[in-house]
Amino acid sequence: MTRTIKLAVIPGDGIGPEVVAEANRVLDAVLTGGDVALERTEFRLGAERFLATGETLPAAEQAAIAEHDAILFGAVGGVPGDPRLKDANIERGLLLKLRFDFDHYANVRPCTLFPGVVSALADPGAVDFVVVREGTEGPYAGNGGTLRAGTPGEVATEVSVNTAHGIERVVRYAFETARERPRRKLTWVHKTNVLTHAGAVWQRLVQSISAEFPEIAVDYMHIDAATIFMVQDPSRFDVIVTDNLFGDILTDLAGAIGGGIGLAASGNINPEGAFPSMFEPVHGSAPDIAGQQKADPTAAILSAAIMLDHLGLPGEAERVRAGVRADLAARGAEPRATAAIGDAIIAALPGRRA
Amino acid sequence: MTRTIKLAVIPGDGIGPEVVAEANRVLDAVLTGGDVALERTEFRLGAERFLATGETLPAAEQAAIAEHDAILFGAVGGVPGDPRLKDANIERGLLLKLRFDFDHYANVRPCTLFPGVVSALADPGAVDFVVVREGTEGPYAGNGGTLRAGTPGEVATEVSVNTAHGIERVVRYAFETARERPRRKLTWVHKTNVLTHAGAVWQRLVQSISAEFPEIAVDYMHIDAATIFMVQDPSRFDVIVTDNLFGDILTDLAGAIGGGIGLAASGNINPEGAFPSMFEPVHGSAPDIAGQQKADPTAAILSAAIMLDHLGLPGEAERVRAGVRADLAARGAEPRATAAIGDAIIAALPGRRA
Ligand SMILES: CC(C)[C@H](C(=O)O)[C@@H](O)C(=O)O
Ligand SMILES: CC(C)[C@H](C(=O)O)[C@@H](O)C(=O)O
Repeated sequence: MTRTIKLAVIPGDGIGPEVVAEANRVLDAVLTGGDVALERTEFRLGAERFLATGETLPAAEQAAIAEHDAILFGAVGGVPGDPRLKDANIERGLLLKLRFDFDHYANVRPCTLFPGVVSALADPGAVDFVVVREGTEGPYAGNGGTLRAGTPGEVATEVSVNTAHGIERVVRYAFETARERPRRKLTWVHKTNVLTHAGAVWQRLVQSISAEFPEIAVDYMHIDAATIFMVQDPSRFDVIVTDNLFGDILTDLAGAIGGGIGLAASGNINPEGAFPSMFEPVHGSAPDIAGQQKADPTAAILSAAIMLDHLGLPGEAERVRAGVRADLAARGAEPRATAAIGDAIIAALPGRRA
Repeated sequence: MTRTIKLAVIPGDGIGPEVVAEANRVLDAVLTGGDVALERTEFRLGAERFLATGETLPAAEQAAIAEHDAILFGAVGGVPGDPRLKDANIERGLLLKLRFDFDHYANVRPCTLFPGVVSALADPGAVDFVVVREGTEGPYAGNGGTLRAGTPGEVATEVSVNTAHGIERVVRYAFETARERPRRKLTWVHKTNVLTHAGAVWQRLVQSISAEFPEIAVDYMHIDAATIFMVQDPSRFDVIVTDNLFGDILTDLAGAIGGGIGLAASGNINPEGAFPSMFEPVHGSAPDIAGQQKADPTAAILSAAIMLDHLGLPGEAERVRAGVRADLAARGAEPRATAAIGDAIIAALPGRRA
């Protein structure tokens, strides 16, 4: 009995297609000989598509993507400053639209300093934490406006919208994540001394949900202080939960201290499965190095591992991570081609049926 | 002819009084024998005052502070979680109120990795930049609200207010700052792909003002990417200009990579001199180590140096910085008492009249 998983693939722009190709090869390798089959549909979306057709995310395509079990996403975005993209906003119109419309409220971004990987920090210690970033509200709500545009009297607002509904579910997800980890620690990050209204809701809900998880130790940090700890003592973190914008900032920083953004994976998860979840490297489309086999596909491959977990295939996910771990431990200083890294990870998959 | 400078001193809470005491001693030492006299008034404000009297910033005291030429500020804030401070918000009601009411729109935070100082980064390179943080608007405007508080239907908003007026003047200040520095580089940081309304005003004004400063090279970075560069290549920065919240986050991070938050100085500047500017270390009140002579007063002393610059005493400012530089270069690993660091910096002041 073969289980068929319908996978929507959005390679995107720049290095997206290259890194997604390797993630797909690793997926094929790890699933070969098992009883799971992937049925892929590719969707050509992103800046290139916009330039060719003027379209960002046509409704029919979005509906088609919604019919899949999961989405593997590369990266989107054209060359910075390209005048033809001046009025496009691929990030908002495609990436964020999928996160919002598919209710990806748990944006999960692990940060592990793997053996053999050099951190930017002099003395990082044992780095192994996961950031659970809220994915569907906060300053990303798109609720801003402009008055007197282009004049000296211009006023522009950005409204961060924060709901008990939205905070409750992501905080609960973070507690559940912490419960599965040996250290059982949760740090919530906000800026409650300045953003007092939103901060109060976070505070109230963290406190009330924490009563249901007495085994989890909880602490709080302002976002500014969190960046200091991230640099000076990252081993103190286990699970971090925070809002959409603070999570955006903190996870790029985490990527930088955890061996580079080329290793940072993420899942945009709708835990209830009402919509397909989406898995993507944290890095961007890096058009400057696109098409040259210079990109590191590891983040895309680790994102595919998170996807396997989400699809109920934890054994396969672990095998992918073991392959990555083995490759990173053996990785020299010489740059390797994107496909060569994919090859090496595939060769290092444990228990591989050749 | 002696020039008298009226200095309002707000030592604040926790380690505030200890570090401000050293800054004052250094000020006295550097001004001794010159023709500038300081006339100090101390204002006891902060969490301790709130607990004693229920007052945060009485109007009469604010009016008295306004009569001074400058403000030397320590740090404010009580013990985290103190139930008696639950409904106090000393940060908003005192620190931010002074910044807003005194129109401190240029929040200047230099980051220099001084010789002899160990960075958290393995390979920091030559770190020497200054962040110009907008200080009077953005997400700090306090324009939020709560609907259905405490219920499952709760909605809380935080409104970031951004005006052409506010952005224009701080961007111009940043260009002027960059013009005085040898590298003549300005990086503006925002999140234009998500905060599109505010981002568009920043973009428009940076672009138009940059035409007046053709000698300054300008680049742009998203805030998330900026944290990566801050960790992986901080020497690329010269002057950074950004909004209030991004500046808050980025300057704590900068503190951490530049030898620790114990060295991070700042000026809350009203360049027109319509109100007294305020000078404060970036660090907080650290109640856990208060009163034990454990705090490093260097950030407060460097803040006093920024104050001397602002008061038109650049020679004195340079002497203070030279004293700090000499002390840092000679500083061993042994912890020293707060006053011992003050002593050492005073002893190292060049050209000191004994
Ligand atoms: C591309 C951008 C809209 C996106 C975000 O801000 O969420 C990215 O930075 C990320 O972290 O996935
Ligand atoms: C205490 C707090 C309100 C303040 C801020 O957020 O501006 C502090 O973090 C700072 O950077 O001066």
